[in-house]
Amino acid sequence: MNPLFHSIFEPRTVALIGASGDAGKNTARPQQFLRRHGWTGTIRPINRTRSELFGEQAFPDLDSVPGAIDHAFVMVPAADVPEALEACGRKQVPVVTIFSDGFSEAGPDGARQQAALAARARELGVRLLGPNCIGVIDVVSRMPLTVNASLAGELAPAGRMAVVSQSGSMLGALLSRGQARGCGFSRLVSVGNEADVGVGEIAAMLVDDPHTDVIALFLETLRDAPLLAAAARAAHSVGKAIIVYKLGRSEVGAQLAVSHTGAIAGEDAAFDAFFRAHGIVRVDQIETLLEIAPLLRGIRPPAPKPGRPRPRVAVVSTTGGGAAMVVDRLGTLGVDAAVPTPAFIENMAAQGIALRAAPIIDLTLAATPAKYAAVLRGLMQSDFCDAVLAVAGSSAQFQPALAVEPMVRVSTEQAWGKPFAAFLAPHAQESLTLLAGHGIAAFRTPEACADALAACLHWRAPMSLHAVLPAADADTIASKVHNAPHAVLDEFRSLEVFDVLGVPTVQRAVLTQAPWSHDLPWPLAAKLVSADLPHKTEAGAVSLGLTDAAALDQAIASMRESALQHAPNASIEGVLLQPMVRGLGEVLLGYRDDVLLGPIVTLGVGGRLAEVYRDASIRVAPVDEAMAREMIDEVKGLAPIRGWRGLPRGDLDALARAVAAFSRLALLPGQPVAEAEANPLIVAADRVVAVDGLIVRKAQS
Amino acid sequence: MNPLFHSIFEPRTVALIGASGDAGKNTARPQQFLRRHGWTGTIRPINRTRSELFGEQAFPDLDSVPGAIDHAFVMVPAADVPEALEACGRKQVPVVTIFSDGFSEAGPDGARQQAALAARARELGVRLLGPNCIGVIDVVSRMPLTVNASLAGELAPAGRMAVVSQSGSMLGALLSRGQARGCGFSRLVSVGNEADVGVGEIAAMLVDDPHTDVIALFLETLRDAPLLAAAARAAHSVGKAIIVYKLGRSEVGAQLAVSHTGAIAGEDAAFDAFFRAHGIVRVDQIETLLEIAPLLRGIRPPAPKPGRPRPRVAVVSTTGGGAAMVVDRLGTLGVDAAVPTPAFIENMAAQGIALRAAPIIDLTLAATPAKYAAVLRGLMQSDFCDAVLAVAGSSAQFQPALAVEPMVRVSTEQAWGKPFAAFLAPHAQESLTLLAGHGIAAFRTPEACADALAACLHWRAPMSLHAVLPAADADTIASKVHNAPHAVLDEFRSLEVFDVLGVPTVQRAVLTQAPWSHDLPWPLAAKLVSADLPHKTEAGAVSLGLTDAAALDQAIASMRESALQHAPNASIEGVLLQPMVRGLGEVLLGYRDDVLLGPIVTLGVGGRLAEVYRDASIRVAPVDEAMAREMIDEVKGLAPIRGWRGLPRGDLDALARAVAAFSRLALLPGQPVAEAEANPLIVAADRVVAVDGLIVRKAQS
Repeated sequence: MNPLFHSIFEPRTVALIGASGDAGKNTARPQQFLRRHGWTGTIRPINRTRSELFGEQAFPDLDSVPGAIDHAFVMVPAADVPEALEACGRKQVPVVTIFSDGFSEAGPDGARQQAALAARARELGVRLLGPNCIGVIDVVSRMPLTVNASLAGELAPAGRMAVVSQSGSMLGALLSRGQARGCGFSRLVSVGNEADVGVGEIAAMLVDDPHTDVIALFLETLRDAPLLAAAARAAHSVGKAIIVYKLGRSEVGAQLAVSHTGAIAGEDAAFDAFFRAHGIVRVDQIETLLEIAPLLRGIRPPAPKPGRPRPRVAVVSTTGGGAAMVVDRLGTLGVDAAVPTPAFIENMAAQGIALRAAPIIDLTLAATPAKYAAVLRGLMQSDFCDAVLAVAGSSAQFQPALAVEPMVRVSTEQAWGKPFAAFLAPHAQESLTLLAGHGIAAFRTPEACADALAACLHWRAPMSLHAVLPAADADTIASKVHNAPHAVLDEFRSLEVFDVLGVPTVQRAVLTQAPWSHDLPWPLAAKLVSADLPHKTEAGAVSLGLTDAAALDQAIASMRESALQHAPNASIEGVLLQPMVRGLGEVLLGYRDDVLLGPIVTLGVGGRLAEVYRDASIRVAPVDEAMAREMIDEVKGLAPIRGWRGLPRGDLDALARAVAAFSRLALLPGQPVAEAEANPLIVAADRVVAVDGLIVRKAQS
Repeated sequence: MNPLFHSIFEPRTVALIGASGDAGKNTARPQQFLRRHGWTGTIRPINRTRSELFGEQAFPDLDSVPGAIDHAFVMVPAADVPEALEACGRKQVPVVTIFSDGFSEAGPDGARQQAALAARARELGVRLLGPNCIGVIDVVSRMPLTVNASLAGELAPAGRMAVVSQSGSMLGALLSRGQARGCGFSRLVSVGNEADVGVGEIAAMLVDDPHTDVIALFLETLRDAPLLAAAARAAHSVGKAIIVYKLGRSEVGAQLAVSHTGAIAGEDAAFDAFFRAHGIVRVDQIETLLEIAPLLRGIRPPAPKPGRPRPRVAVVSTTGGGAAMVVDRLGTLGVDAAVPTPAFIENMAAQGIALRAAPIIDLTLAATPAKYAAVLRGLMQSDFCDAVLAVAGSSAQFQPALAVEPMVRVSTEQAWGKPFAAFLAPHAQESLTLLAGHGIAAFRTPEACADALAACLHWRAPMSLHAVLPAADADTIASKVHNAPHAVLDEFRSLEVFDVLGVPTVQRAVLTQAPWSHDLPWPLAAKLVSADLPHKTEAGAVSLGLTDAAALDQAIASMRESALQHAPNASIEGVLLQPMVRGLGEVLLGYRDDVLLGPIVTLGVGGRLAEVYRDASIRVAPVDEAMAREMIDEVKGLAPIRGWRGLPRGDLDALARAVAAFSRLALLPGQPVAEAEANPLIVAADRVVAVDGLIVRKAQS
């Protein structure tokens, strides 16, 4: 086990730097909370003027404290934090949690001070949590090293869910909501501004924690994506789940979530792609973050089922309206209600249970607990549904034991490996408590229930990275990218790179002088090659549909004239000729090395409406052909080339190969490409071909 | 007051037809519930074999009962219901509620029996509630005439919200959830299959009910849209709100919601349009249906603010993360967080309160209750925000009285006429109860909070019906529609109708024989006129871009040949000639007399992607030009003709006039048009013009 883990969560001695003796102050809370909740470790309050705080000896400074300190909690004003850090360095405190604010969340000056702090901590060999962080609540060892007011209440018994939050105040909110649900926690930690230790590193430690099964994240941004990705892969390999609620569904929300932390917002769809690529379950509603945990326990991410793109939930209910609310919402989330098969209906009939072939399995009539259990058991064993949902009506309110008995009996009689959830239509606290006590996922709103089931059923194992870019190809591309005269590679050079990647490109020739002889088939498109003409169409430097040599000669002359009028000093390197390519549709392939999330590939429809509809599929790069096919299926505007309404299909296999090939830009050592675009890539019935594109090289650092 | 209202909700004598003396049976419940909850009226249990049930005299049949019956509750098997109805007729019982199922929800046979029942009731002068309905719970008079199990609990004190539900089981679920929130009810009623009395008629009675302020509807479909529309308008005129939760957001949900009631699903967007047109507030989450009520109390539907298409909520918080969850969700729902104006910040500074110009007004530091109240009061008075949201963190959990005190103080000190809501980030039941007790809208999830605020701020007064179709025009159109040779009017006849409506149409001529002389400008489009060629393009009966007379002659010959090959017996009435029209974009205008909701107009983009993206705006017809402009703004794919990215703008005023004119099809007496389409309507920079269209006449009944 990582020694940092013990220092953070299970220290034996903590120092409280800036502790107050005034019980009404925030800075007095950690000491009071630690004792109130029965922590038995050593507390070293540091207070300049008092030698005793709440009956414990206090020290004027850290240097005066005898013995080692495992974890220091710093509550002094921002200006005094560097001094506190130096003291921690002298004392070789392995981890320092900084509650103090006034750093990157306060603006550029604060960000500079934070960077200096982090740099100095590295020199001192001290790890930092925060600043602007409310601390750690370790429920396992009953060590609430925090100022969070929620600790004024009772600390619930320990459970197996850990929480990592970028928002300090939400840590207490989640703790209190979890306690009200009988949901136990192992460790909760606020990471603040993440000057040093971030969400990813904490998650990795929690994957190794024997007291933690499920790791819940409350995120505003992501500052250490590679570490979180690695932690998620490790979690998958040991059968633990990482669940995330992330702010930023709307643009205003994305800006807001980071405005007080000085971080970058990022694109929500790219976060979706990132979480999905690494096997992290993203939920949409805050209550789901807590309520989904039992649903995932003992479940592995489901494999996609060929021919069944929408997963199916079998819904058993004694209340039609209550069940319909969940099924309706599931429908909007891409999940269907499973209609019992004839075989299943026959099987149940043999046990004296009459069912109809309907999307809600109605057990209102003559539902004895034994029969209810038999139906549930049958569904857990069947293969026509991917999950089972039991919906209870008024019985959950007035006969809780009776209502939940079949659910408890069946779900606990063996490890089914299939998600099982309960939704209670009325307010039925006692039933919820009974279900929670048996580790059954029980939902109080149809929306959270559908959110959790959809998230669980759309969950995927971390993508496997089989994509390879041969070293020779990588070298060729790297040299083309590095040796290009400008950071923005022109279309000719960009298409050359696409050739090496294996993206089919249009035939072409660059000629520098008359006679304009070539062996390309007519009709042709012609374009001036010039770094001085970034907007070629506006400069009159593009001609389309040229049918013979005379037309070409005339077009070149006219383009030169027009371009030089537009930019008199433009240097014209030559003329790019391409055959006109016709296809069934056009797509746009995009690549970028996202500043937060790393390499990303997008596939969208070509043309101006693509932007209007924001209709694109996005994945962490590289992708393989199977995932590229998923992307093709996701873009609504590609319906015509998928054969919608009998329209002629494009060569989707070739398109998938091209997407996968293009995405291998991510495999270039050192990732020299900032962004790239093949636009348009023409999709024909028997091939695809990129006819234009560009690559943007990163600034050399 | 409607005498039906008293019979349904406040009867003095009820008959329980099919009452059981076996306390375990559903059919024993109404009598037990009525007495248990203290109802003091007269109960007449009807039981064939017993002369006494639970200490009250029972009767073998209704005819044996002395005196009048105000309300009969029928619990006999479906086959015995007609006999019970006859007995009620003989006894002149004004209203009969039928719990029995096995009617339209059970299939076509049941539907026939239900229709017969309804017809017979009309003959007898008896009004029906149900069948397949669980009854009425009148909290005002403490009269729970129902089998719903939720009545086994306590009946909460009366409040001012009425509930009408098509789902029986959800009535109990809503009652229990409301009770847990301290939300009082006036009357709750299950309408079942609505063979006679439906949601609209009940709603109209509740608008007149002095005990009811807010009417909440749980809907699966809508069987009496005109009555509900009228009730909603009446509610608006007396300052009451109607709120609806309607199943059917997803296709599967829409089907499911009606599969067990034999009703028609309908299109969700059309329901949205219907609710909006009539001033009904639609919520998205079930908890919002209950929690939104206090938010609407004393509030009128806001008028649209010119230049401020997205309403704004001022958000005051002591928890950044908690507030950000609501703001993020609001952003996805088209509502912004209001940033305080410099004037407001200055005003607060003068009171010693330092605020920043940020979308969340952070009151974490030094927020005394007096200062908190001063900020809230300032926001309630300001005009830079349309609503105010107060978000509380851990203080709501541990110091409930203190945390809610400023909210209670400010929101109750006068009638502000501005929505005020509270969201509590932690689990904080005591604070919720305090807020509910003071009539303040308090939300336990950020999602329900945002749902409610968005629904409240997007709420509109019932649309005013100023559109007029002159009688002469209506007569002209009616005769064109009725006298057309086929139910589907061809493009020539349809365009003639559009002309009369005031929708600009393309110049055209129909010629029946050579020489094909005309005075239309070239180039032309030509099309064969024939009722026998419904798919003209496939039949080769369309020619485009004809530039001279020779080309026209040749095209007509070739179209005739091709068409007669395609349909050898086709009768060709002539040739329709039109100039080719070019514009900046194409739209599709649609009209239909929706079987559930009445006249509906839609505006979408033209072309095949329109269907893929389902990108259309939909309204109850007719609309005026201002509403047509709203529709134009809603269609994403019309961004190019709205001037997006500097593209040339289409003539949006002309388009709005055309949409409004087209929608006046709804004003034809007797609504003879089933559906109509102008497709495409070309939008140019200086005009719009319909170049094709069709009208479908209703079958004569």
